[in-house]
Amino acid sequence: MSDAQQSAKESETSSRPSKRRAIPETAEEMARRQREISVSEFFLKNRHLLGFDSPRRALLTAVKEAVDNALDACEEAGILPEVAVEIVQIEPDRFSVTVTDNGPGIVRAQIPKIFAKLLYGSKFHRLRMSRGQQGIGISAAAMYGQLTTGQPALIRSRTARARPAHEIEVAMDTKSNRPTILRDIETDWRPEFPQEADESGAAAAPTSSDHGTSVTIVLEAAYVRGRLSVDEYLQQCAVVNPHLRLHYRLALLPRGNDENHATDSASSPSIAGGAWRHWRRAVETLPKPPVEIRPHPHGVELGLLIQILKHTTARTVRAALTRDFSRVNDRAALEVCARAGVDPHAAPARIAHRESEALFRALGEVKLMRPPTDCLSPIGEELIVAGLKKEVAADFYTAVTREPAVYRGHPFQIEAGLAYARPNAEGGAAADDPARLLRFANRVPLLYMAGACAITRSTCAVNWRAYGLAQPKDALPLGPLVLLVHVASVWVPFTSESKDAVAHYPEIVREITFALQECGRRLAVFLSRRRREADAERRRSHIEKYIPHLALGLREILRFDEREEERVRQKLASLLERSRGEATWLERGK
Amino acid sequence: MSDAQQSAKESETSSRPSKRRAIPETAEEMARRQREISVSEFFLKNRHLLGFDSPRRALLTAVKEAVDNALDACEEAGILPEVAVEIVQIEPDRFSVTVTDNGPGIVRAQIPKIFAKLLYGSKFHRLRMSRGQQGIGISAAAMYGQLTTGQPALIRSRTARARPAHEIEVAMDTKSNRPTILRDIETDWRPEFPQEADESGAAAAPTSSDHGTSVTIVLEAAYVRGRLSVDEYLQQCAVVNPHLRLHYRLALLPRGNDENHATDSASSPSIAGGAWRHWRRAVETLPKPPVEIRPHPHGVELGLLIQILKHTTARTVRAALTRDFSRVNDRAALEVCARAGVDPHAAPARIAHRESEALFRALGEVKLMRPPTDCLSPIGEELIVAGLKKEVAADFYTAVTREPAVYRGHPFQIEAGLAYARPNAEGGAAADDPARLLRFANRVPLLYMAGACAITRSTCAVNWRAYGLAQPKDALPLGPLVLLVHVASVWVPFTSESKDAVAHYPEIVREITFALQECGRRLAVFLSRRRREADAERRRSHIEKYIPHLALGLREILRFDEREEERVRQKLASLLERSRGEATWLERGK
Repeated sequence: MSDAQQSAKESETSSRPSKRRAIPETAEEMARRQREISVSEFFLKNRHLLGFDSPRRALLTAVKEAVDNALDACEEAGILPEVAVEIVQIEPDRFSVTVTDNGPGIVRAQIPKIFAKLLYGSKFHRLRMSRGQQGIGISAAAMYGQLTTGQPALIRSRTARARPAHEIEVAMDTKSNRPTILRDIETDWRPEFPQEADESGAAAAPTSSDHGTSVTIVLEAAYVRGRLSVDEYLQQCAVVNPHLRLHYRLALLPRGNDENHATDSASSPSIAGGAWRHWRRAVETLPKPPVEIRPHPHGVELGLLIQILKHTTARTVRAALTRDFSRVNDRAALEVCARAGVDPHAAPARIAHRESEALFRALGEVKLMRPPTDCLSPIGEELIVAGLKKEVAADFYTAVTREPAVYRGHPFQIEAGLAYARPNAEGGAAADDPARLLRFANRVPLLYMAGACAITRSTCAVNWRAYGLAQPKDALPLGPLVLLVHVASVWVPFTSESKDAVAHYPEIVREITFALQECGRRLAVFLSRRRREADAERRRSHIEKYIPHLALGLREILRFDEREEERVRQKLASLLERSRGEATWLERGK
Repeated sequence: MSDAQQSAKESETSSRPSKRRAIPETAEEMARRQREISVSEFFLKNRHLLGFDSPRRALLTAVKEAVDNALDACEEAGILPEVAVEIVQIEPDRFSVTVTDNGPGIVRAQIPKIFAKLLYGSKFHRLRMSRGQQGIGISAAAMYGQLTTGQPALIRSRTARARPAHEIEVAMDTKSNRPTILRDIETDWRPEFPQEADESGAAAAPTSSDHGTSVTIVLEAAYVRGRLSVDEYLQQCAVVNPHLRLHYRLALLPRGNDENHATDSASSPSIAGGAWRHWRRAVETLPKPPVEIRPHPHGVELGLLIQILKHTTARTVRAALTRDFSRVNDRAALEVCARAGVDPHAAPARIAHRESEALFRALGEVKLMRPPTDCLSPIGEELIVAGLKKEVAADFYTAVTREPAVYRGHPFQIEAGLAYARPNAEGGAAADDPARLLRFANRVPLLYMAGACAITRSTCAVNWRAYGLAQPKDALPLGPLVLLVHVASVWVPFTSESKDAVAHYPEIVREITFALQECGRRLAVFLSRRRREADAERRRSHIEKYIPHLALGLREILRFDEREEERVRQKLASLLERSRGEATWLERGK
């Protein structure tokens, strides 16, 4: 304790004594210290919850939030998305991230709140599959940039050719979670996208769009290549969004000059310019647009039911039940009221607590159809296989899209894909490496927190040995294997606000398991056929080696001449060929 | 896709068509859907982040938040805490949780906000070790109760004998995160605590206090015994809070009657009354009260510095630096200003962005003392050993309290304890079971999410084989071992709002490793001494067996009589005794 005492003494000299108050305190003194905590203060102090716990992850998270928003906006507006991501290292530990899209643009009045207010957005209150769902992501990225570099976010947006573009610099007042507009002008900006050089190698002029949004955030960050990098994220993005046209440029400072740049960054225009990379579209159509649904009674808790009854615009309980829930038709509503002993014509808001509880129990007992599933937009088996083919050279590809299922009233749908390369093939993985698992939620690649994710745990729990693969206990299978799992839902239950891992809901784990098992069974069929074919091939070449000797032996025994020997040899060979063909046919029929 | 189409068709008939809008949408339509999301709406939908993802965990989380608050309040007021926890199962899936303390009480005006508003509290803005830190816990428990049972939280509180008690029922308006007061009366309530029966077994009258608070929350929950139960939590609470007097009662419905109770709960007063359990105090003094500190410059980010300069009450930069930061004395402040090229007499709020960045860099370069550590209140080695002795019967106990260290400017301190039972001792663990790891943060037991916790990962990363224990790769050591790790900090970086796991800050991982390694070294000394003693014992009993034969042989060779044989036997025995004593002494001297 002597150390602590010493510390206390030391600090006495350098500190404002009034602040170093001794306890005990009375209830009144404690009351004076009670304060509201703004959500921005909370997340500023807890920024690891948002995915900003290290400079490397911060870079990825900022890009991810901006790209997710761009894709959501394009798809909602029915626009085939084109997105440019530009990352420029302006100081050794400081990066500028700019993401530009050809989306519908954002009306001026909404820009400050969308980019500089946490918990603000259009997707939270809606039951429909989308990448964003919380109203935190992009404003958290802007807040982190502001915290680490003091720089505001810069947003440019245009909604139509006939309207001006808005260019706004906005910071967050983190004490109150409100935006502060620092600059707000009208310009004739239009989103531009760099294009691939043509066949002659001549640089193509960039194309531009009449509408779109661009956001620039300057933040403290680090760039590291590899499985957790922005490159990997964008690559996987292209795999599950085949309708996306994507451009990416990373400009890093020349190495070794770091020291100079650290102290004198403003005067260094000589950035080592990275070239643009381009991903083309694999399809020219948008995914089926998901439809918004209302909550399903079997996933609604008592407190939520009370709230819906309080705030409904319906005038009777019967009308509220049919209008504010999905899958409750008039007959079901009347049955619920009868079971609960509630007058179907009663005013919903007047239903006392006692009655709402009876209503709640009755809703749970009545048989209802499962929630509609057009709120989901799966990738589809065909496009998953196409995506895997772009990503990995393999001998065998397969994909499974499960029927939609439900957890806590929320529809969700699981898709899985599998690619199997020839072991030790050129450029492929070694046969005893663990499989590579690509995780996706609502078409967004998940890179961090693999260990905490229901996808990883479900994949490890599948018995891959049953399908002919090696697998250590509770681990990924071994082999030149790429696995892909996509969780699509109106509300993906993430384990934290950073949205990197899916929580372990038993219904979700079960569906992932079934999807992977189906992929595994198909792989097993492929592997066993390949093994049999290899066996047959080996047997055949074995026999072929003996045919000349056999023919020679027959000639000596039966005193054939050379011509007869040749005829026997050909007959034996064609017999072997035929029998092999039949065997293969038989095997195939199995 | 045919399934989805069918769903869409089905839902058309039962749905409000206007709501099932088709996209695409324009920027203007999207803007109309943008909304603020209240923090209560956010956590209601994400309640797994708060520790309410299963009925079993919900019960523990509710108890934990209430007990944490009770202990914090008592300690801040300088009151030796006495806490009663009563859990009553009122329906098969519905529990009433009441936690009563003898703390300072809460003034009436604060009660609604503390219990029915998320992100409200006194601990968030303060740099001082306490159990609560977020202003979320207890109001989240009340919110969960309200969501699942529709019941408001009931709070009773009294601040002094001379004042009336307040009894308040409060619910949360989750759309706005504001409290709604349902009942608010003055009573003569006083907190009461059941007492242990005296030696004759006669029931003692409960004692009461002039001040204190009691909170009752009714929630959907499940009770399951075991390592993740409320019992385990309270047991561990008593271990690390030896100054706590604790009473606990769990009353479950009789089994088998569940079916009846489920449909007719109001008419079942026949609850199987559990008896009160009591934990006495091990010490009658409060832990050293931690002192509030100000932020240390080396842990402050640029954005935070700008905010401090904007909001300071100091009139000059020089004064702001010395008053709003710890460890910056006048000399250091002047040096910082000189390095940054800032006038020390400039008004802090007027410092432009450019200058604050220079100031920020200068603050990082100037040498400063590490932050004061009297903001921490470790348990202490002696009390950790005492706590372990209550918990586990073992042959060897040790504990280590490390010197305070710093992560991101926040002081923290690691303590570790170890208890080693004789393998296969009665009631003890088997020798090949994994060690049991007790995790604590700011004196709060952490039960859930062990796998995600820096404490678990650090413990598994220690090479326990070096200390004579078996250990599978990347796992806990095997053996009849209990390990305890306590992380004390002004701001414990938890991996989620449910505060069950500590995030992986390298400084914290390193300190945990050092503390456990020291425990391990001490265990190795004990184990090797015990092994040597066992060896010596075996040798001795071996030789003892031969002494009579030796004496007999000598008698026959030297023709001793029986008396002389007995004398030789005794001499040999005492020689053996002496040589063994010396060896032991020598060994001890090592």
